[in-house]
Amino acid sequence: MTRGVGVNHGPQHSASRGRITSPSNPQVKAIRALRDRKERERTGHCYVEGIRAVAAALESGVHVHQIVVATDLLASDFARDVVRSAERRGAAIMEVSPSVFQSISSKDGPQGLALVACQKWVHLSDVRLAPTGVWLALSASQDAGNVGSILRTCDAVRVTGVVLVGPSVDPYDPSSLRASTGAAFTIPLARASWSDFAAWIAREQVPLVGATGDAPTSYRAAEYPPRLVLLMGSERDGLSDAQQASCSLLVHIPMRGTVDSLNLAVATSLILYEIFGHR
Amino acid sequence: MTRGVGVNHGPQHSASRGRITSPSNPQVKAIRALRDRKERERTGHCYVEGIRAVAAALESGVHVHQIVVATDLLASDFARDVVRSAERRGAAIMEVSPSVFQSISSKDGPQGLALVACQKWVHLSDVRLAPTGVWLALSASQDAGNVGSILRTCDAVRVTGVVLVGPSVDPYDPSSLRASTGAAFTIPLARASWSDFAAWIAREQVPLVGATGDAPTSYRAAEYPPRLVLLMGSERDGLSDAQQASCSLLVHIPMRGTVDSLNLAVATSLILYEIFGHR
Repeated sequence: MTRGVGVNHGPQHSASRGRITSPSNPQVKAIRALRDRKERERTGHCYVEGIRAVAAALESGVHVHQIVVATDLLASDFARDVVRSAERRGAAIMEVSPSVFQSISSKDGPQGLALVACQKWVHLSDVRLAPTGVWLALSASQDAGNVGSILRTCDAVRVTGVVLVGPSVDPYDPSSLRASTGAAFTIPLARASWSDFAAWIAREQVPLVGATGDAPTSYRAAEYPPRLVLLMGSERDGLSDAQQASCSLLVHIPMRGTVDSLNLAVATSLILYEIFGHR
Repeated sequence: MTRGVGVNHGPQHSASRGRITSPSNPQVKAIRALRDRKERERTGHCYVEGIRAVAAALESGVHVHQIVVATDLLASDFARDVVRSAERRGAAIMEVSPSVFQSISSKDGPQGLALVACQKWVHLSDVRLAPTGVWLALSASQDAGNVGSILRTCDAVRVTGVVLVGPSVDPYDPSSLRASTGAAFTIPLARASWSDFAAWIAREQVPLVGATGDAPTSYRAAEYPPRLVLLMGSERDGLSDAQQASCSLLVHIPMRGTVDSLNLAVATSLILYEIFGHR
């Protein structure tokens, strides 16, 4: 992955000097519109807010479209350093008034720093698997916070990549980005229909490991192959029978209480840490 | 814990027969007011919504104040069975119109079933620890979804109880209850200031195990005592120096990527499962 801030030398740069004070400015409206998934998909952009999240995104080498700053809201030297460092690297800075920033922000006490970055997707058809390594496949996940938390774990254990299978939540949703604390920009992301995913698995001849409550083997007792794709079902329905049938190994997480499943981010993280704990 | 539905034979019961069609009905307003933490604390009540969540709450033996039903919205036989079973056990049923239900609901397609239950708190000063068992202490946790997901894991591994230390989010917050999928009603809950908590730890002479990124011992390599309290810091700040100094064992979770911490529910669950995996 390229380090350093990729910069768009478009009209935003020349427009970056005057402070914007109107919430109905077209550039401001374009940023607000990124709350909507359709608009994110149309533009290929996403919106990242908060000092730590922006710093992490910059650090990851994400392609920055625009940095949004409300100087009057920046409360820390660290925040001002982040802005200066981005500016030195040539990022387009858009200075706005506090009230304009609030009109963009999804937070209660906004910190005055955000950025618009370019989404990055890998195409599963281009992905060739190495002899070792773990991919994670999330089927039909519906909770953006879960997806973000899972990406955070994937970064920590160095998962090779994540594929969102079927009708899933958008990992570039603001809730997902917030929960990922920057990991959404460090991990290769792909999306695919179930049939395209299944074709990729078949072509790469990679073992699929699934998690389901009635699997005979505990996730702690299983022997995991050196290269594998871990497949996790949706929050609501888990893995379908067809998905389970595609797996060469099924594991369960022991549960001794009254609830019948764990949070998806928790379950995924338990299995990923177990796999990587033996490497 | 008592099984079966505890019933409040108050005025709600006699008022339960007529269908309420006005969103400004005082009983309806009282339920909507439970979105507010202050009102939940004043009344000692909480609001649980959704068929599975209501069924889980009833199953746990929670003390039910009121069941709220919009019959026209109930789409499954299971939902109707839940209502009939609660009714047979004498719970006060409040029948409302779909629009009144929507005025109460925090969901986009509400399922027509909710309940108002009584909160249950244990007092730490009354809690004597057995020779084996694990309590979890969450310090200053600020994310209700995390707390709910953690309670779900606590149920799965049979944690003895959970104490919320310092200024924490409310585990009876609707987001927490939803994320706990009923576990908030199965696990003894306590709350305490740090000094009352520290006094309890000292009195019970129980080892405190803390998690922090720079601890020398990995959570997988640690030897956990048979009785312990696991102390987890806040999402934002982790454990303070004073809190770390109170711990007889500190563990870290290995992280090999660029982000510097895991989601709190994920981190807590990894350590709890590691502790219980050896029992």
